[in-house]
Amino acid sequence: MVLTKQKTIQIGLLGAGVVGSGIIKSLLNHPLIKIKKIGVKGLNKKRDWGDSVGNSRDCSLQTTTNLTEIVTDPEIQIIVEALGGLNPARDLVTLAIKNKKHIVTANKDLIATYGPELFDLARENNVQIQFEASVCGGIPIINTLKQTLNANKFSKIMGIMNGTTNYILTEMLSKNLNFNDCLNEAQKLGYAEPDPTSDVSGKDAAYKIAILSSIAFHERIKINEVYTEGIEKITLLDILTAEELGYRLKLIALSKKEDDGKIDVRVHPAFIKQTNPLASVLGVNNGVLVEGDLVGELTLIGRGAGQSPTTSSVIGDLNLLAAQLSYSREPHPQFVCHHTEYAKIKPMKDTVNCYFLRLKTEDKPGVVGQIGTIFGSHDVSINAFTQRGINHDDTASITMLTHKVKEEKIQNAITELKKANSIKQVENLIRVLE
Amino acid sequence: MVLTKQKTIQIGLLGAGVVGSGIIKSLLNHPLIKIKKIGVKGLNKKRDWGDSVGNSRDCSLQTTTNLTEIVTDPEIQIIVEALGGLNPARDLVTLAIKNKKHIVTANKDLIATYGPELFDLARENNVQIQFEASVCGGIPIINTLKQTLNANKFSKIMGIMNGTTNYILTEMLSKNLNFNDCLNEAQKLGYAEPDPTSDVSGKDAAYKIAILSSIAFHERIKINEVYTEGIEKITLLDILTAEELGYRLKLIALSKKEDDGKIDVRVHPAFIKQTNPLASVLGVNNGVLVEGDLVGELTLIGRGAGQSPTTSSVIGDLNLLAAQLSYSREPHPQFVCHHTEYAKIKPMKDTVNCYFLRLKTEDKPGVVGQIGTIFGSHDVSINAFTQRGINHDDTASITMLTHKVKEEKIQNAITELKKANSIKQVENLIRVLE
Repeated sequence: MVLTKQKTIQIGLLGAGVVGSGIIKSLLNHPLIKIKKIGVKGLNKKRDWGDSVGNSRDCSLQTTTNLTEIVTDPEIQIIVEALGGLNPARDLVTLAIKNKKHIVTANKDLIATYGPELFDLARENNVQIQFEASVCGGIPIINTLKQTLNANKFSKIMGIMNGTTNYILTEMLSKNLNFNDCLNEAQKLGYAEPDPTSDVSGKDAAYKIAILSSIAFHERIKINEVYTEGIEKITLLDILTAEELGYRLKLIALSKKEDDGKIDVRVHPAFIKQTNPLASVLGVNNGVLVEGDLVGELTLIGRGAGQSPTTSSVIGDLNLLAAQLSYSREPHPQFVCHHTEYAKIKPMKDTVNCYFLRLKTEDKPGVVGQIGTIFGSHDVSINAFTQRGINHDDTASITMLTHKVKEEKIQNAITELKKANSIKQVENLIRVLE
Repeated sequence: MVLTKQKTIQIGLLGAGVVGSGIIKSLLNHPLIKIKKIGVKGLNKKRDWGDSVGNSRDCSLQTTTNLTEIVTDPEIQIIVEALGGLNPARDLVTLAIKNKKHIVTANKDLIATYGPELFDLARENNVQIQFEASVCGGIPIINTLKQTLNANKFSKIMGIMNGTTNYILTEMLSKNLNFNDCLNEAQKLGYAEPDPTSDVSGKDAAYKIAILSSIAFHERIKINEVYTEGIEKITLLDILTAEELGYRLKLIALSKKEDDGKIDVRVHPAFIKQTNPLASVLGVNNGVLVEGDLVGELTLIGRGAGQSPTTSSVIGDLNLLAAQLSYSREPHPQFVCHHTEYAKIKPMKDTVNCYFLRLKTEDKPGVVGQIGTIFGSHDVSINAFTQRGINHDDTASITMLTHKVKEEKIQNAITELKKANSIKQVENLIRVLE
């Protein structure tokens, strides 16, 4: 691929950690883009791109701890933000935009949390913010939604957007392990952080589905309105039962535009059909399924994190932007999101799902009748019901699948079940997405 | 999504069949694009977009049988070619380009066969040819390769690129049917043409992999150099044996850039691992897996044909092009392929694969030894070998999996096997892609 006009574009890079280093290595000897300055925390750290630099024309790579100097440099046209986290990223990106710099970022926390104010500011200053790398690493879902599928009206996005939890669930199934063993293994392999809360709790996936919902449905999403439930309570038994019933247990991020105009957006473990393409998303991979009125269901599966996939998306955005800027000072009018309204979010209690339920009950006559009566009084209709003999502690384990019912009704039924004297424990409630 | 500047773009549409009608319906009341003329074969046919037109501002839609008039109309900036087939599409698109029209097409035959001359002509005339819809309908694989993943060096494309054959293979497996019954059913449902040769023989998939290879590897491909083998000889037994061995049988289009610079490009039935995301591509769906140095493996799965998915891709290309033209007379410099060299294609005999083989032999001592000796003399190393009892006709059925070996060697071994007196029949040879 060759660009029709060639004029060097100078950029500033904020951050030289894992992502930043990958970007530097990819830009050495780039025909069009030159990194003028790299903003780092400390100057004395040995960098893994050091060796490559020695052999390139870019041996002049200039590092500085003065990040403000970078975002205000009049020769720099594009700021690549690879700091991660909310601060100082927010302040630096804000200042960069005010100085008419275009932004390329891999920072999902920043976009999901401060996207609205940054996009407003970018529009005022006539600059672009590109953020393909902020959602699912190398998977080109943002450009696909915004550009290539621009003819579609979208109705649904559903995905596996967190590699750590998908690795844990995949390992539990393939090796018959419990949650904690798999988490420990993931930490040893670097697939999980020392503090895995953000991944395991579903928060990381919530950021991503909030960003994608906003693009697909043209309405801003407040991140704290996204219902979020993690995989901490998932047991091997849940995973194996899903398989037995023709499902697979995954941590699903879901967003649907409902007929009433509300958006049903949430992250939680769910049973999905084994024939769903997302069921075959294994290990640290991510997958995103979108549904458009013309394209139907389209699924993208790939690496959702890591230095190289994230670099693929950052450099992809950067090359397209630089190609435009080398041609004219002003970037080309793209299909840019111009929405400023906030979405009305469907409260979790109003969502409709099927449910899988596991109960531990006393082993005595009348238990099944009691469960049935409680469910019936809350309009919960049972689709499948299994009791298999008696446990060692003389309790019985009962599993159930319900037909579609409002979340509020199943929760009320469960509250009542918990009070029933024959029910020892409600062990898990997992939503089933058909 | 809102465009920053709005100036109506007039287009000409060639063809008002299934694809053309979908395009017309999508463009009614479009804020930016107006269809000035529609080229059709006959004027008296009732069109399924007739009713929509009556209710829109576009009741002026002008149809004509003079297609030359459309491609030479000075007010028309973009020609959408939805005729299909090689002629008159080739002559009309050529004339349109000479008249400085940009082209959007869904025509894979045209691009795969006459792409080189058309792209050369487009470059001379400074116009664009966009053809997302020509490969795998709604799946945005071309823009993904050319634009979003522009930072990657690609090494492999592998896909299920024909919905008809994938429907047949899926039905054979799920309903235990034979090939002919499934083909008949596919024809009844409109998933297969009355003459299904192009689909079933692999030719349709060969066009598509030729186009994608050319984009990914920046070298032109001669369509008749693509090794092509269809699914006509596939039996239910082959499909079930694949499942037993942990594989799935699919019609695979494959293209790899080899270390020697040659391209290994081909279409044939193959066993792929059940864990490969392509194994879960079911029914009429298509799937494409690409491997890039940064992104790793990325798989896209969706509808590969049909009015709506094809319209999604055509209108997607058209909107992006129209947005550029409404902003300036000249379209924006994109990452356009500028390669003009033809690829060196690896001859099929030099490719390296594992193989699955089914033999019918006499049931007598020494048979296994004979097979082993012949394979050994051709350097074919056996990975797995199964014989299960005796058939009704007193023959024995033997299945084998080989280790990796050159195609030439396995073919020589098979030629020799066929001559061996104890071998009744070599029933099938299917490549195994690891």
